[in-house]
Formats: sequence, C-alpha cells, structure tokens
Amino acid sequence: MAKKERGTTAILLIHCPDQQGILATVTEFININGGNIVYLDQHVDRVEKVFFMRVEWELENFVIPKDRINEYFNTLYAQKYDMDFRLYFSDYKPNMAVFVSKMSHCLFDMLARYTAGEWAVNIPLIISNHEDLRDVADRFGIPYHHIPITKENKTEQEEATLKLLEDSKVDFIVLARYMQILSDKMIAKYPDKIINIHHSFLPAFIGAKPYHAAHERGVKLIGATSHYVTAELDAGPIIGQDITRISHKDTVEDLVRKGCDLEKIVLSKAVGKHIARKILTYKNKTVVF
Amino acid sequence: MAKKERGTTAILLIHCPDQQGILATVTEFININGGNIVYLDQHVDRVEKVFFMRVEWELENFVIPKDRINEYFNTLYAQKYDMDFRLYFSDYKPNMAVFVSKMSHCLFDMLARYTAGEWAVNIPLIISNHEDLRDVADRFGIPYHHIPITKENKTEQEEATLKLLEDSKVDFIVLARYMQILSDKMIAKYPDKIINIHHSFLPAFIGAKPYHAAHERGVKLIGATSHYVTAELDAGPIIGQDITRISHKDTVEDLVRKGCDLEKIVLSKAVGKHIARKILTYKNKTVVF
Amino acid sequence: MAKKERGTTAILLIHCPDQQGILATVTEFININGGNIVYLDQHVDRVEKVFFMRVEWELENFVIPKDRINEYFNTLYAQKYDMDFRLYFSDYKPNMAVFVSKMSHCLFDMLARYTAGEWAVNIPLIISNHEDLRDVADRFGIPYHHIPITKENKTEQEEATLKLLEDSKVDFIVLARYMQILSDKMIAKYPDKIINIHHSFLPAFIGAKPYHAAHERGVKLIGATSHYVTAELDAGPIIGQDITRISHKDTVEDLVRKGCDLEKIVLSKAVGKHIARKILTYKNKTVVF
Amino acid sequence: MAKKERGTTAILLIHCPDQQGILATVTEFININGGNIVYLDQHVDRVEKVFFMRVEWELENFVIPKDRINEYFNTLYAQKYDMDFRLYFSDYKPNMAVFVSKMSHCLFDMLARYTAGEWAVNIPLIISNHEDLRDVADRFGIPYHHIPITKENKTEQEEATLKLLEDSKVDFIVLARYMQILSDKMIAKYPDKIINIHHSFLPAFIGAKPYHAAHERGVKLIGATSHYVTAELDAGPIIGQDITRISHKDTVEDLVRKGCDLEKIVLSKAVGKHIARKILTYKNKTVVF
Repeated sequence: MAKKERGTTAILLIHCPDQQGILATVTEFININGGNIVYLDQHVDRVEKVFFMRVEWELENFVIPKDRINEYFNTLYAQKYDMDFRLYFSDYKPNMAVFVSKMSHCLFDMLARYTAGEWAVNIPLIISNHEDLRDVADRFGIPYHHIPITKENKTEQEEATLKLLEDSKVDFIVLARYMQILSDKMIAKYPDKIINIHHSFLPAFIGAKPYHAAHERGVKLIGATSHYVTAELDAGPIIGQDITRISHKDTVEDLVRKGCDLEKIVLSKAVGKHIARKILTYKNKTVVF
Repeated sequence: MAKKERGTTAILLIHCPDQQGILATVTEFININGGNIVYLDQHVDRVEKVFFMRVEWELENFVIPKDRINEYFNTLYAQKYDMDFRLYFSDYKPNMAVFVSKMSHCLFDMLARYTAGEWAVNIPLIISNHEDLRDVADRFGIPYHHIPITKENKTEQEEATLKLLEDSKVDFIVLARYMQILSDKMIAKYPDKIINIHHSFLPAFIGAKPYHAAHERGVKLIGATSHYVTAELDAGPIIGQDITRISHKDTVEDLVRKGCDLEKIVLSKAVGKHIARKILTYKNKTVVF
Repeated sequence: MAKKERGTTAILLIHCPDQQGILATVTEFININGGNIVYLDQHVDRVEKVFFMRVEWELENFVIPKDRINEYFNTLYAQKYDMDFRLYFSDYKPNMAVFVSKMSHCLFDMLARYTAGEWAVNIPLIISNHEDLRDVADRFGIPYHHIPITKENKTEQEEATLKLLEDSKVDFIVLARYMQILSDKMIAKYPDKIINIHHSFLPAFIGAKPYHAAHERGVKLIGATSHYVTAELDAGPIIGQDITRISHKDTVEDLVRKGCDLEKIVLSKAVGKHIARKILTYKNKTVVF
Repeated sequence: MAKKERGTTAILLIHCPDQQGILATVTEFININGGNIVYLDQHVDRVEKVFFMRVEWELENFVIPKDRINEYFNTLYAQKYDMDFRLYFSDYKPNMAVFVSKMSHCLFDMLARYTAGEWAVNIPLIISNHEDLRDVADRFGIPYHHIPITKENKTEQEEATLKLLEDSKVDFIVLARYMQILSDKMIAKYPDKIINIHHSFLPAFIGAKPYHAAHERGVKLIGATSHYVTAELDAGPIIGQDITRISHKDTVEDLVRKGCDLEKIVLSKAVGKHIARKILTYKNKTVVF
C-alpha cells in the first residue's frame, strides 16, 4: 500500500450562506496563487441555503506563506462572504486522548491502526475510571492514567483530567466505551472535539444498556452510532452509523458480542474522518466528505 | 422456477414451557402416523425457558384424518405439555385485506407478487380512506372500497369496515401505508393478524413524519419496520426491519424516495412470511422461521 | 411528497483532461450568463487525470437561448479544454423501451414507478420474445410486441425490433430480465443506452443460471448488478450492485426468490439515475452522481 | 457481560443420509442418559437428502463416561445411520497457529479477541515469511517464527513449518493475509482446518491483487470471503462473506483501506465459529450453525 510521497497540503473547511460564485472564487484564489488542488468537494443545502466546502491543495508553489494563509483568506474572502472557516495543515499531527472504562475492543482497534501507521495522529495518553485496561496501554507503550470517579470526587477528578489534557496539548478526545457522563464544562471546552460511540442506532435506545433494551423490544437489527458529544446526552451531531442483523435466536450476550464488532469499526471510521479533517458540523448535523 | 408439485401439507406452530423430549415427542407423533416431514425448525429461549417449533409434513399417507388432527394433537400432547399451538393446511388460501391511503408503492408491490402467483393468498378487497388508488385496484380487478374517515364519522365508518371484512371472510389485514390509527376494537378482533409497515427503524421515530424527524436529527441511516399492530402505537411485535444509507446530501424528499424502496420490500417480506405460517409471537416479540 | 414547481433546467455532463480552473470556468460561464445553479457535483480521477462534472441550472433568466447553448458551450469551452460533453433539458421526457421475457417482477416494479409519476419518462412499447407478459402490459395500457426469436429468424427479427424502436423514437432500452443476447449491431446503435440487470454480483457468475452456480459454489451472499450493455457479455460499465445474505438453508428456488427483490430494486435505481442524467461513462466504468 | 458458569459440555456434529426419526433418536439418546441439551440445531438438505445436526449438552449428570461417549455413540447409532460425526468437549482449548506476511490488521484483530478472552483457544505460535510483524507478536508475548520462503527453499521450509506445527500440537491454522500458497501436502494434513481470508467476494477476483482487479472492473461493491483451504486456489468451502459499498471516488488505496475493515471482521467471525464447533462441511460447502 505504498503511497506517493506528497508535500505539505493545506486543508480548508468552509461553510457560509450560499450565493453564486463562491466555489469559483475560492478555487480561483488557490489556483492563481500557485496552489495545486488535490481534493475538492462541496455541498449546498438548498433548503437552509448554506454552502459547504472542503478543499485541499499542495503548498509547494503556493505564493502566500503558510503562516499567513489564514490571515489572507480571512481578509480577502471570509469576511466578505460571512464564512465560518477552519484551516489545517497536513504536517501537523493532532494529539488524541482516549477515554476508556472496562471494554477493550474499541481501544485495541484504535491502537492497532495507530501502530500500523494508518492515522496521522499522536496518542499521548489514555484515561480511565478503571484499572482494567492498563495492560492494553502498556502493550502499546502509552501512558495510562487511572482516574476513578465517584459522586463525591467527580468535580475534582474532572479538573485533574482537564489538567492532564492541557499538559498533553490534547486536540481532541475519543470516548471508547467510556461509561461516565462528561461535565458541561469539559464538553464546552472541546466543542466538536469529543467523539463518542453509542451502542445503538440513535435516536433509538438512548442512555444506558441499549442492548438490553433492544432485546426487550425484539428488534431485528442492532446498531452503533458515532457522534460528537454535546451537553444533551446522546444527542450530538451524528458522524456515522451502521447496523447488523439479529434474530430471535440471539440472547443479550449475543447482541453485546455482535455489537462490539460494529462499535469498533463505526468509531474508528469516525476518528479517521476527524483526523483527515473531513467532517464539518452545522446545526447539530454533520457534513462528512 | 418450476416447483415439484407437492400434496397438501399440515403446518404446526407450537410454543410451550421447555422441557426435555418435546421435540422428539412431536416428531415421533408425525413419523409413526405416516407423515413425511418436509420442514422442521425449533428454537429454545433458554432465558424464558420456552420452546418454539414449526413443523410441516405431507398428509398423503398420514393416518389421522385431516379434520381430526387438531383434536388428536390437542388431546394427546397439547394439554400434557401446556402447549399453545396452531394448525394450518397448505390447501387453504387465506383472505387478505389491504388498507391504503395515497401512496401506491407498497400496494403495487403486493399486487405484482399476487398476480405473479408468488403468494398463496386471496385479496378480496382493498379499503382506503381516499379515492387516489382506485385506479391501481381497477388495473388488477380487485374491489376498492372508499371509506373516508373524519373525527365525526370514525366509529361508524369502522363498523362499516368491520362488516366488509366479515362479509369477505378476511383472515388478516395489511396496512400498506394506511395513514389512520385503528380502533382498539378492530385491533382486538384481529390479534397478530394486522401487519403494518412503519417508515423508520423502530423504536426510533414513532408516530407521524418519521422521515422529517430523521432528517432533522441528521441520522446516517433510514429504515423501515414491519410489525403486528397492537393497541399501543408502533409498539407491536416486530417482524422485519431493514435500512439504507443516507448522507448530508439527501433532502427529506430523497429520504421519502429511498424509503419507499425499503418499505415495500420489508412489508412484502413480512406478508410472505405470514402467509407461509412462519411467524410465531410471544411476549410482544416474534420468532420468524 | 409535493415538490416545488421548478422551471426548465439544463443539465451538462462533462469529462475532459484535468487541468486547473475548469470547474471555476464552467460555473462562471453559467453564473455570468444568469443561470441559477441548482446542482453541482464534480469528480477528479487523479490517477487517470480526468475531470468529471455534472451541473444543472435554471434557464429562466439565462441569457443564451436554449437552442444555442450547445453551440455556445462547444465554441467557447469544449474545444479549448478537449471536453466530451452532453447537454440535456429537463423538459424533454425520454422514450424508454422495455424488453422482457417471462419473469414479471422487474417489469411490474418499473411500471409501478412510471404510473406513480416517479420517473420523467415515456414508455411507448414493451418488446418480448414470449407472450407471457402481455397481460401485464395490458393492465398498464402499454403496447406489447411479441417478437419470438429462433436461431433461424434472429437477424430479421432484430431488424424488425430496430424498426419498432426507431418508429417510437426510443432513446434508451431497459432489459428487464430479457433472456436473449443482443446483436452487436443493436448494441452499437445504442451505446451507453441499453441497461441490463444481471442476477449476480458481477464479475462473478457471468452468463446463464447464476443462481444455480451460486448455490453450487456455496456462497453466503447473492447479488444483482445493473450495467450498460456492451459487445462483451456481462462486461459493460457497472451502474449499481447490491447483495443479500443467504445460508445453507436456502435452496436454488429460495435464491431465485430472494434475488428477484434485489434485481428489481437495483435495476429501477439504475433506470432512475439514467433518466435523471446522473451517469457518466468513461473507460468501461461509470461515474454515478 | 457476565456469563453463568457452565460445566463441561459435549458437542456433537453429525451429517448422514436423511431418514425419518434421526433427530428424535439422537435427542433421546442424550435425554435418557441424563444429558441436558443446551443447544440444538438441525438442517435437512432435501435435494441431496442429507441430514445435518449440531447438539450440545451438559455432561454433569450424563451417565456415559466422557471418554466413552465417542465409542458408545459410534456403536449404537453412527454405524446404523451411516453417520459422519465429530465429538468435541468444551473443556479442551484447541491450539491455533496464525500465518501472516506483512499486513497487521487481521493479526491485531485476532490477538485483541484472544487477549480479551473472547475465544476459548490457545495461540502457541505465529509463523511468517517476513520479519515485519514480529513486533506485534512481541507485544502480545507470542512466539514468532520467521520462515522466509523462496522458490528454491519452499519444500524444506514447509517441512520446517510442519515440524513446528506438530511440536506445538496445532489443531488448526489461520491464514491472516498470508501471501504464500500452501503445498498440497500441508493442505492434506489439515483438512477443513486451515482458514483463509480472501480479499474479494469469491468467486469473483480469485488470486492475486483482487482490489486492483475490482478497481479496474469498476465494481460498486468490494468484499471479503473466509473459507477453508483446499488444493484448488480460493475454491474451498466458503464460511462467511461480507461486502462494503464503494464508488467512483475510491482509488485502489481506498479499496485496500476499506477492505481491511471487512477482512478482519469476516476472518475473525469465521475463526470464532470454528472454535465454537459451529461449522460442518459437506461437498465443498459449509453448514454454519
């Protein structure tokens, strides 16, 4: 799976009120300044009249210095078109924290990808409210922080967590079957930067024990949903979903086992898209390029 | 797709408290009396300790007369094992009523199968609260009864409907995107005999306008669910479910269009299973053989 | 499913060697001449270095007269960029011929959509090498031409068929489980205009009796493939594919029955995409927008 | 996911010519000798007239000693009914060898399940024709044997491999993207005991580089197939298959990446079924209970 070596690219994610000519304007900005576009995708929500765009270009011959692109783009276009934009560079590897509790399948799946070099990311730490998965972290040589949480210590323990995240310059967080509800403060600090996996096809079976609820209801499909975490439980922007068939033969234990395979793939796909800067959020929904 | 001609078969659907030897007992009953088993499937719910079974055998050399099998089986086994059982014969074609409103896709799909001889069923009548689909019924030569429903006339119109169903000796009812809620009286009269298609993966998006709700929530999958109708809205035993992928590009209209393809296949599969006597219900769930 | 009434739109499908600025150029051409873009999607094959685009715009305020757009676009851009382009207008309903043999499921599915107004298309005739489906055509009031084919009469019967297609000004042909191989002459006359459904996931099980072959091989999935017909059997550009799970319990008859549901949906989706001018072909592959 | 502790069970897999009463006979044998059946599934291939059965029962109160069950069953029933049967006990953990080359995704997935205790199996060794994955084996503390293979040394290296397998008392082998073709001798030594993952939906794209072939053909689905290895390449009994959708946007690299997620899940599911003794083979097909 050898890839051609490619120089640093810039990635621009934009959304703004739709109007004629935006796409042409942005691509022209890149073209006339010597950027070679290697990816371009756009979407227009014609009901909301919003324009979304992801464009990626090589910086090798781009005449605007890398550290001035943001300023130039903001001055020349973003203000004029009332754009909400984010600029990323491919040579920056974001720092990702993983939160876990007791189940290892999602953690193993991510660490396998990380180790195999599938993701351009660093994992400076794993945080858990249990000791159970320290052994997994050790196998991969990643610092493991056990931060047990009780009703009494929840606030201070979350402060300690926030401190750890800051010290490690964490850019985003993955909740890999982490069975604690985050405080509003932490959520507010990482908007669209906390990815959770919920073990049902949302909005069905919100909250605890969705496989038990699915079995009780007698559904013929079970699912998993990756989403960004917002203040409302299991109600943030959905990134991806998948399902698998079940039948009357399946016990709750079978559902849990079959669900694990779904969860890890759905979560890792979402993380991969996030790392590749392919997700835009707008009004509690995602545009996934 | 030529099928070997087969004589009349008996179909026995059973559930009862699980205990050792039931399966052996029932198969022996059929074998020693000269029945040739052509289908046998069983399921044991080991949590609830319930035994489920579907067995089908040829009557050609069966020594018990067809019209006495029910009595014999009841006397010899059903009482002893506390069985809930139903006996059907393959040479009886059930009468199926179809209820529709304005959308034609499910109706067309069922009439196509009916006309092609895929189902061993009669369709003596189609009932609708609108005139829109009379033309479809006419194409297939099936009587179409327009029974408009308002708040004021709902009770008497349902009486008229019940009368029609009785006159046509209707065995079961299919709600093919029928947009009226049935009365408890009608539901009680046809227990596990009214099949509905709901245009979402239940239990998500119960009630009206599920595609709008799905679009609003920003899900990445839409679904359809066939189920038996019970007194509680969209909460009866689920027969089948399927989903299709959607993305941010899809408008509500796209969801409706894509959903139609799901709905008709999910509904027709449920109807086919019902006609083939392959569904057992127990505690608001189905066992689908 | 009421749609907002929309005026006539123009649809432009383009592919050409990729180079900087093409997208900007084409969108600017539409914008500066008063066209309101309602759909735009593009794709760049970075290996083949080919640019693909589909753009649709409202003609209401477009300054170039409808019947001159082709000429203007060709003169101003197509030659310069070495473009292969096709221009369509939404107010032209194409004429679609359907070829069938004995199985009715695909035909019924298409006629249901046609009758319900899902497709902007005319069906002036149905052609078959058998009499079996005349009754279906009659139900929908569509002329049915029985053109039986033997080894001896194949050439002259195909001439008769071609004559019929020309007389009805047929734009494209759908083979809805038509069990005859078309001549190279007919295929050459309708390039990328004959859609076939093959009852397997191509390239597995090319040719006759794929369900028998699938059963023999013991696969756990069966599939269906829609594709444009080319001179090589079952080897034309693939438009769409889908599969369903099977198990050791399924007989060949079960495969046929389950496959029918796949075939009709996969075929109708392809036909819908073709009618909506959403398919581009290039080097024996499709770009489906 | 706490499971009730369960005593040792016996698992019997049977196939034989179908005749009346076999199921009753076998279940009676277990029941009257004090076995408590915890799983029973059967299948009759009515075309081939073959009966298949999997039954599992608790040995706690079973009157026949564990080490005599095989003999008793053979004497009393197997010869009489011309049965091909295998008897297993749940307290024996089979030894599984894993063969790999350079790609780590399948290996990681299996080792994660192994470490998490999902499988009742031992992994005494990993064998590879490359050094690349030694690091993965080391993380999990499993002996890694590098056995490079060239045209010249193939025979002797395979002898060395066979010796290793015997020394470790290996019961079955998993080829986790092992890119060497096994000799007929090795295949003959482990009949229905070598599980391979092929990165296409067989029988399409047999042999090397199936993703390149899939991209070249322009398919809209890619797949993965787990199967037992037989002398004919990629033609052994299929255990499981799955697919994922692709589009014109996907490069060969995208196919490889998306395919990896399929491969590892399809392979691990097959391995799990094999370990649980849920697979029967018959005439180059599988019955998977």
